[in-house]
Amino acid sequence: MEFSSKLLEKAVNEMSQLPGIGKRTALRLVLHLLRQPKSQTLELADALQNMRNDIKFCKSCNNISDSEFCEICANPNRNSELICVVEDIRDVMAIENTSSFKGLYHVLGGKISPMDGIGPNDLNIQPLVEKVKQGRVKELIFALGSTMEGDTTNFYIYKQIQDFDITTSTIARGISVGNELEYTDEVTLGRSIINRIPFEVSLKS
Amino acid sequence: MEFSSKLLEKAVNEMSQLPGIGKRTALRLVLHLLRQPKSQTLELADALQNMRNDIKFCKSCNNISDSEFCEICANPNRNSELICVVEDIRDVMAIENTSSFKGLYHVLGGKISPMDGIGPNDLNIQPLVEKVKQGRVKELIFALGSTMEGDTTNFYIYKQIQDFDITTSTIARGISVGNELEYTDEVTLGRSIINRIPFEVSLKS
Repeated sequence: MEFSSKLLEKAVNEMSQLPGIGKRTALRLVLHLLRQPKSQTLELADALQNMRNDIKFCKSCNNISDSEFCEICANPNRNSELICVVEDIRDVMAIENTSSFKGLYHVLGGKISPMDGIGPNDLNIQPLVEKVKQGRVKELIFALGSTMEGDTTNFYIYKQIQDFDITTSTIARGISVGNELEYTDEVTLGRSIINRIPFEVSLKS
Repeated sequence: MEFSSKLLEKAVNEMSQLPGIGKRTALRLVLHLLRQPKSQTLELADALQNMRNDIKFCKSCNNISDSEFCEICANPNRNSELICVVEDIRDVMAIENTSSFKGLYHVLGGKISPMDGIGPNDLNIQPLVEKVKQGRVKELIFALGSTMEGDTTNFYIYKQIQDFDITTSTIARGISVGNELEYTDEVTLGRSIINRIPFEVSLKS
């Protein structure tokens, strides 16, 4: 692409480094900004700068936060002995939206994935093991995605903490609420039969 | 969406004002930036700010430029008596890529579209009419998209300049090079028969 302006070219090049945004989309976005009031572009640039400069990660759970400890960890009404292990902040937001969980989180920042060069030391696993060692945790809930990388990460953490007096669980896998059996894949359906739950229990949830 | 950080929320909100980017995509982009080196975010923000603050529009053709007159208008080797009327800078880039045009451009900045509240006065039409009035132009090529808005805009400009001694043309519409007849829509195919060109002429292009 040949640009008539170096400033435009630089903006398009920077924008196209975002995931899923190619040169053409970047040009469309940048031209849109040029048509809008100047303030919109400046506010976007400011918001990005402020975020990158000032954002903090909670010292306890590694969630994104504006202060040293995030709102969830700082809330005395939450059960600090129950910790839900998740991959990133989007999972925290998804679980918080359900209003079904009153414990704390521990954000790993990713999953073990040798294919992408991500090993256990690249993730926030050691602080979690420390928490368990100090006896502050009664139950760990593994809530990673149901993929090979998720299962590997679960197993790695489990191996590190299995000698301590702690309950571990994973979130239930099965057919989605509202789904028909015939459209569910066979692995999920097979597991949902093996891991069936007492009918009386299902009535309560 | 409930965010654990106001800074994150602000960045996501600003990002999601871009066309085609919803809240979820904006969150994905912003989280990507947080995982990358700080310099990437700051350079993106800088590039956007600099572009919005310092970019100029060519005083002659209204194309985006770093200086008062764009490189095309400032080039003495180009034919200033032949002007191609386009909607925006992307069309200039597309036509420049073909290397088939050696005249100048005139960027309207949009098309007349009453549905979107865009009238002739919102576009850069008057300066074009002035150029024609001053007798500096021999031929105008209308190269707007082949839509109702494009045709309306062409016709509006044509009405303004029809009394002057000037040739007007539109770019050819017909089947794309490499396309099969059976997949071409009937309007295009019908027009391509009506507007057929002498075979000897087609051999030269």
